[in-house]
Amino acid sequence: MDEIEELSDLECWEVLGRNELGRLAFHLLDEVDIVPVNYAVDGRTLLFRTAEGSKLLGVVLNGNVAFEVEEVGSDSARSVVVRGRARQLGEHEAHRAENVPLHTWVPGERYEVVEIRPMSMAGREYPLVRPWTHMHA
Amino acid sequence: MDEIEELSDLECWEVLGRNELGRLAFHLLDEVDIVPVNYAVDGRTLLFRTAEGSKLLGVVLNGNVAFEVEEVGSDSARSVVVRGRARQLGEHEAHRAENVPLHTWVPGERYEVVEIRPMSMAGREYPLVRPWTHMHA
Repeated sequence: MDEIEELSDLECWEVLGRNELGRLAFHLLDEVDIVPVNYAVDGRTLLFRTAEGSKLLGVVLNGNVAFEVEEVGSDSARSVVVRGRARQLGEHEAHRAENVPLHTWVPGERYEVVEIRPMSMAGREYPLVRPWTHMHA
Repeated sequence: MDEIEELSDLECWEVLGRNELGRLAFHLLDEVDIVPVNYAVDGRTLLFRTAEGSKLLGVVLNGNVAFEVEEVGSDSARSVVVRGRARQLGEHEAHRAENVPLHTWVPGERYEVVEIRPMSMAGREYPLVRPWTHMHA
């Protein structure tokens, strides 16, 4: 491929569905913060687990978030950016996290479940020009 | 390693220095957005190139940004989050981008140079528990 290509919504969901590490960007009062999270797709939403802390506080105070997932290959890379609303799930909904392959890479207790409901989504596939990587081959 | 370890500032700079792909989280009016960017370390700042567009508009309107770089290994992962101020460099400063190894993976013209000056930095090394990855070994 020579040019940047836009991914369809279906292709975006495919990328989201076959990965499990993304980065959440969120407001924390007047600032912006970013943190890697393990997630899973549930229907047309994303779920992740978290402990109490600034990440949870941020999305409770302002649910306006962005979420990004990447796939980097040798000749091209894909990036999907979801912009949407995050909300903490209550007790009667949190069980949804048990029915999806939500693998948390880092040990530790995270009881709270957050849902991201996409309002818009943009996926791109980029040709990569990294001649220097072949020098290591 | 069994527990999450905080990285020192020096270790954070080492992680930043040996990578070239990160994710920029920025304000775009009342929203938050996130985008992958190629960057390079210049002294105790980060530089990246961009074309005109929402990324540049966002940081010009509000220079408050967060930037994240990851290294994922088989048994542990490192993540460095920089929070700081971004600003577009003027003509007399943009040449700084020519003196650092700023490799842009995606072809295309990006004339504008943006500097991120860290105000705070947090690096963590996480033990990874991914028994399912060994199933592919």
